[in-house]
Amino acid sequence: MYIDKTEIEQLEKQKRVHLINSLGGFKSVALVGTSDKNGNENLAIFSSLFHIGANPPLIGMIFRPSPPERDTMSNILETGFYTINHINETIYKQAHQTSARYESEVSEFQVTNLKPEYKNNFFAPFVAESNIQLGVEFKEKVDISINNTTMIIGEIVQIYLPENCLHDDGFIDLEKANTITCSGLDSYHKTIQIDRLSYAKPYKEITSLL
Amino acid sequence: MYIDKTEIEQLEKQKRVHLINSLGGFKSVALVGTSDKNGNENLAIFSSLFHIGANPPLIGMIFRPSPPERDTMSNILETGFYTINHINETIYKQAHQTSARYESEVSEFQVTNLKPEYKNNFFAPFVAESNIQLGVEFKEKVDISINNTTMIIGEIVQIYLPENCLHDDGFIDLEKANTITCSGLDSYHKTIQIDRLSYAKPYKEITSLL
Repeated sequence: MYIDKTEIEQLEKQKRVHLINSLGGFKSVALVGTSDKNGNENLAIFSSLFHIGANPPLIGMIFRPSPPERDTMSNILETGFYTINHINETIYKQAHQTSARYESEVSEFQVTNLKPEYKNNFFAPFVAESNIQLGVEFKEKVDISINNTTMIIGEIVQIYLPENCLHDDGFIDLEKANTITCSGLDSYHKTIQIDRLSYAKPYKEITSLL
Repeated sequence: MYIDKTEIEQLEKQKRVHLINSLGGFKSVALVGTSDKNGNENLAIFSSLFHIGANPPLIGMIFRPSPPERDTMSNILETGFYTINHINETIYKQAHQTSARYESEVSEFQVTNLKPEYKNNFFAPFVAESNIQLGVEFKEKVDISINNTTMIIGEIVQIYLPENCLHDDGFIDLEKANTITCSGLDSYHKTIQIDRLSYAKPYKEITSLL
């Protein structure tokens, strides 16, 4: 079926939100842990994470102009540090619950029973139940004027992962770490690897790395 | 295991590239179709697509400072239009092959045997074998100074999808459309839905929408 620009514009608001959020395909989904300068913790689910570069190791995320992401962004700007924690099948319901609009003084760690974890002198709390955890240092804030969203760019400075998930070439087996993916606003999925493919070169057959 | 900032910096280059590309989790992966003003077609795989907003419907992608994405970006800036085409299990090898560094005058459609498709007066070519196709109009270019990458933001103005994949509430069943996801630089995965969850509210149990 074909949906043109006029039809997109005329869609009922919630229907458009579901549709457009589905169109980008499967997404990274993770819990972002922060704390304000007084140690009040915050935890929020994000599905707008993306790779920006490997050297330095940079990761980006998009913040909407309104709540509920407000606490996360203000904590990042206030303290300079945040954690990105992969979501697995054991905690996806608790992770989803962090998207509820709690009062600002409430810690989503407490209400969801996810456990904050502090280690190696990193300022922000990790999620103990997460198998892959990143400590990230704030680097740059980019305002996107077209719809008043904000891109936050951070550098990955600490990496925690199960040793048996790391291949010799640096590839991480996310399935072995039970990392899941999401689609749309509310759909969670586990994955089955189809293949790993060799580096593509012109006029050469690609081969499987498995 | 724990990898600290110094160890990340000291990793051999390719190993760091694989590692950092894996850390963000599962990613959207799609084929971006463009054409220069003379009609010379280009097709390239991207795994750096992300949702920016639903009203207007905006999608972002990151371009590295160097080839092979050069043709795609220059075509977008020259003509103002591009297509985003979901990848399915039938075409993932051809999709991966578009990442080879072909000479600029070569069409990746031709060398991979993927079929360009033109419809509804949209300037750029869609990929006929793709089940979900988006026609996108260029809106904004944002230079990311920290590592010389570029973010391109476009508005989704045409949507093509199988009618039986669209739910009444706007959610698209990407699994029914055979859309796949990727991790790292070269790993492709199909998915199994775990659940769809209700809109989260404070102190209320979330329920399954399935």
